Amino acid sequence: MDAKVVERIQASFQAQSMMCLINAEISNIDIGAVEIQAPIADSTLQQQSFAHAGLAFTLGDSAAGFSALTMLGADQEVVTSEMKIHLLRPGTGKFLIARGRVIKAGQRLVVAAADVYDNHGGQEKLMATLLGTIVPTPV
Amino acid sequence: MDAKVVERIQASFQAQSMMCLINAEISNIDIGAVEIQAPIADSTLQQQSFAHAGLAFTLGDSAAGFSALTMLGADQEVVTSEMKIHLLRPGTGKFLIARGRVIKAGQRLVVAAADVYDNHGGQEKLMATLLGTIVPTPV
Amino acid sequence: MDAKVVERIQASFQAQSMMCLINAEISNIDIGAVEIQAPIADSTLQQQSFAHAGLAFTLGDSAAGFSALTMLGADQEVVTSEMKIHLLRPGTGKFLIARGRVIKAGQRLVVAAADVYDNHGGQEKLMATLLGTIVPTPV
Amino acid sequence: MDAKVVERIQASFQAQSMMCLINAEISNIDIGAVEIQAPIADSTLQQQSFAHAGLAFTLGDSAAGFSALTMLGADQEVVTSEMKIHLLRPGTGKFLIARGRVIKAGQRLVVAAADVYDNHGGQEKLMATLLGTIVPTPV
Repeated sequence: MDAKVVERIQASFQAQSMMCLINAEISNIDIGAVEIQAPIADSTLQQQSFAHAGLAFTLGDSAAGFSALTMLGADQEVVTSEMKIHLLRPGTGKFLIARGRVIKAGQRLVVAAADVYDNHGGQEKLMATLLGTIVPTPV
Repeated sequence: MDAKVVERIQASFQAQSMMCLINAEISNIDIGAVEIQAPIADSTLQQQSFAHAGLAFTLGDSAAGFSALTMLGADQEVVTSEMKIHLLRPGTGKFLIARGRVIKAGQRLVVAAADVYDNHGGQEKLMATLLGTIVPTPV
Repeated sequence: MDAKVVERIQASFQAQSMMCLINAEISNIDIGAVEIQAPIADSTLQQQSFAHAGLAFTLGDSAAGFSALTMLGADQEVVTSEMKIHLLRPGTGKFLIARGRVIKAGQRLVVAAADVYDNHGGQEKLMATLLGTIVPTPV
Repeated sequence: MDAKVVERIQASFQAQSMMCLINAEISNIDIGAVEIQAPIADSTLQQQSFAHAGLAFTLGDSAAGFSALTMLGADQEVVTSEMKIHLLRPGTGKFLIARGRVIKAGQRLVVAAADVYDNHGGQEKLMATLLGTIVPTPV
């Protein structure tokens, strides 16, 4: 991996206060594939004490967006234009890990996906899957 | 409005710690139409200092889900099965207000939508629109 | 309505052989809002003899796309980048009518929607709703 | 493969007149994975003479739905509740082949996907990808 790409992803990540609020961190960066994780914390639950859909979305959307960003030039940022999420089962483990990937990097749009896994001390279950459109923009 | 429905929505809302984390509150409840708002805070931004997509999603998804809940019996809860969001412009105002509504309340599924407005001291701009599937479940 | 816009929409419509295959026709054109209808024919059914989802999608997607096209310059065409459809009830009437509308016309992307109604001799029922992203392209 | 499942899929397919209209046929059936193909014909084009989005949707949606059907009991049918499609490149080849798969078969809902490939005399290009919700219903 190009150290500059890693640096760029990390800088963009650090600049997102929402990532800090949910205690998220980047756990892996490859070209076209970024992983982000965060604890299922007392502060990020829904009414049945499962991980909130908003937590899964925030992680998955960010993983998809950063996956797209790894494939763009240094003069470009990304914004999500639209994103879909399916919630497949309740998130009841210790933390969530979102694995983003690029489906198609077009000239003007990037189609990207993410799978969000619920981690129970090492064992993973697919909790959510996302698919959406990321738009490159000038920095 | 039936006071019991209001009470039920408020109880479910209070039980979601994620709503507290982002300082969200319910600003209106009607049958099939619930409004939720939250500040665009220093802690809920993305890298360009706009409202994070995860904030808009969390509010819109909740507004859609609670809108569905107003139409169900006291023995039912709701979970989001899938949800789509379009982010239409940056959220740069004081707070976001999400207005949910039910499109179709079926026997087994409820299709619901939400529009998220960016509020600049009274003036509103449509920031995001959501559409998705809410599933009634036993309490 | 500008006669040139109407002419441009009609020309693009006529050039789509799929529209002929399903006997579709444009029933109204306004700026940002185009209507397309087609019969629920013996040849466009699914296994329970209801209108096929593919028929509802084809009409709704085209109505959304043409709605976007009314707002663009004469040197631009449109393609659908992504589109979502909710099927709300079976289509059992005489014909379907899809009413497209523009939600947000951005510089690079247009977000557009369509509602598809099932027509029973004048009475209409909402059968499907679509939401998606239309991309302007050079002719 | 259970011959009865194959028979059931084929019977449901034959009962869909829309499949006949676009000359579609089932090219493979496995548990949780069904393939459907159809020619890019003179009658199924859009205005630039590429495969119409409605053709890609119809094939992909059917492949996803039939993939779900392979996992259900003999007393159940399926309907699509909602479906998303991304169109990734123009379809310019001889025929399209849609490969469906089940992502998650829940008690009440099945989440299924399909990839639609554009076939140029043996060489395949990913033209579209779909993701959606299939609902089991009594026959």
